[in-house]
Amino acid sequence: MINIGIVGLGLIGGSVGLDLRTLGYRVLGVSRREQTCQKAIALGAVDEASLELSLLSIADLIFICTPISVIIPTLEQLIPLMSYSTILTDVGSVKIPIVEAVSEIWPNFVGGHPMAGKAESGIEVAQLGLFRDRPYVLTPTEDTPPESVEKVETIARLLQSQVYFCDPHEHDRAVACISHLPVMVSASLIYTCMNETNPNVVKLAQKLASSGFRDTSRVGGGNPELGQMMAQYNRLEVLRSLYSFRDQIDGFIQDIEQEDWETIEAKLGYTQQNRRLFLQDES
Amino acid sequence: MINIGIVGLGLIGGSVGLDLRTLGYRVLGVSRREQTCQKAIALGAVDEASLELSLLSIADLIFICTPISVIIPTLEQLIPLMSYSTILTDVGSVKIPIVEAVSEIWPNFVGGHPMAGKAESGIEVAQLGLFRDRPYVLTPTEDTPPESVEKVETIARLLQSQVYFCDPHEHDRAVACISHLPVMVSASLIYTCMNETNPNVVKLAQKLASSGFRDTSRVGGGNPELGQMMAQYNRLEVLRSLYSFRDQIDGFIQDIEQEDWETIEAKLGYTQQNRRLFLQDES
Repeated sequence: MINIGIVGLGLIGGSVGLDLRTLGYRVLGVSRREQTCQKAIALGAVDEASLELSLLSIADLIFICTPISVIIPTLEQLIPLMSYSTILTDVGSVKIPIVEAVSEIWPNFVGGHPMAGKAESGIEVAQLGLFRDRPYVLTPTEDTPPESVEKVETIARLLQSQVYFCDPHEHDRAVACISHLPVMVSASLIYTCMNETNPNVVKLAQKLASSGFRDTSRVGGGNPELGQMMAQYNRLEVLRSLYSFRDQIDGFIQDIEQEDWETIEAKLGYTQQNRRLFLQDES
Repeated sequence: MINIGIVGLGLIGGSVGLDLRTLGYRVLGVSRREQTCQKAIALGAVDEASLELSLLSIADLIFICTPISVIIPTLEQLIPLMSYSTILTDVGSVKIPIVEAVSEIWPNFVGGHPMAGKAESGIEVAQLGLFRDRPYVLTPTEDTPPESVEKVETIARLLQSQVYFCDPHEHDRAVACISHLPVMVSASLIYTCMNETNPNVVKLAQKLASSGFRDTSRVGGGNPELGQMMAQYNRLEVLRSLYSFRDQIDGFIQDIEQEDWETIEAKLGYTQQNRRLFLQDES
């Protein structure tokens, strides 16, 4: 029997626990808060829960499901408790800083990023099947033991995820484009509307705003801490995508300044055609 | 009895006709295409339809529901057919170029913008109650006869719209922010993702893109002709909003370059707080 350890019993950690317990695994959970431990047990997300990482000394595979800023400190505390065969994986939305830091201290680590979520967070909203049909990216390096990769892959497939393997750099660059850049873009849109100098126009804009504004501004109105973490931990790739995005904005500005309506229409035709390539789950 | 004329029997013109006929008005419609005339009659959107504007010579109030580029030419053709008491209104999404051009040739004009729509267009998707609870902006000037404004307002209220009065400049500035700028921003996001130089990353981004990308990119994947019209007819205000938006993007770039995470989190807190001011219809 495989013992699964989970550090961080929030939406992701709790949902991993719910699925794996249903599949017959023994699940041991660690949280910083006693109340969360109690809730995780009551909801059936874990078999046992503790405030102490030592609970996980018997785990064969440990999921680190903490906020990204706590992944490395957590790992450092875990090391004295683990045997050499213990496999570690994480669920962080940025991979390079994690993979690089971990490779120095624990080779038996498989970087992971299950791309599922909800507007709400916390153990209360954990659910069975959260990862079903969602992407689950694994970012092993040349030094990662193949049998460890295989074991994490098996678990990801048991969660019914679509498993993708890629280089951690490619992962971070891809999520910068489709996940982190949109937050900065969407927030800048809200700022622009609020910054209008004529207060009548701001009030009117608020009354007239409709589904177009609602959708384009959604991710810019999300959790500020998450957005800041994306920028901080994926700094170089987020900057790179922002530079490239600014070039596109400059292009539209130039087209409109020069009244080049054909180019504008051609560009919007290109984006209309190509957007659907990013919506494969809807086809 | 008031006779209503409608030029342009698409989604908007057809829906105005459906509502006003239900309310007991006699509705006369003009389209460029015989097939559209037949459909409008069959759907009950008009009492009579014709390819000829002369059908509208007995109308007391005429809605111009054509694409924005055809509003002024249509008006010029209508003038010889109208009596001095005929009230004209339009439904164009930009007001300054229309209001300024019309004021030279027909004083009895009330600029209007009912803010309702659908993803599809055409008489086939016209529907009763399309304007219910939606904003309907009227932009009379100092020279617009008050009794004409009152008559158009009465009709807009019969369509169960929320009627707002404003200066045409303020209208165009507000819709640039909340409607036209989002199209350019959203299209630039799609472009940025497609322009990534590593083809593996583009493919991965397409596989991993989820609801955040879907929502932020939605209006950038819309009708190219509509987006081009917005830029063309609201050129100065769209440029102004793009300059302001670019300043915001530059601000985020600077914050991230300088690793000023507190400012990033504070800004995202501000946008999280203020976005809800634009979503009054959801509260």
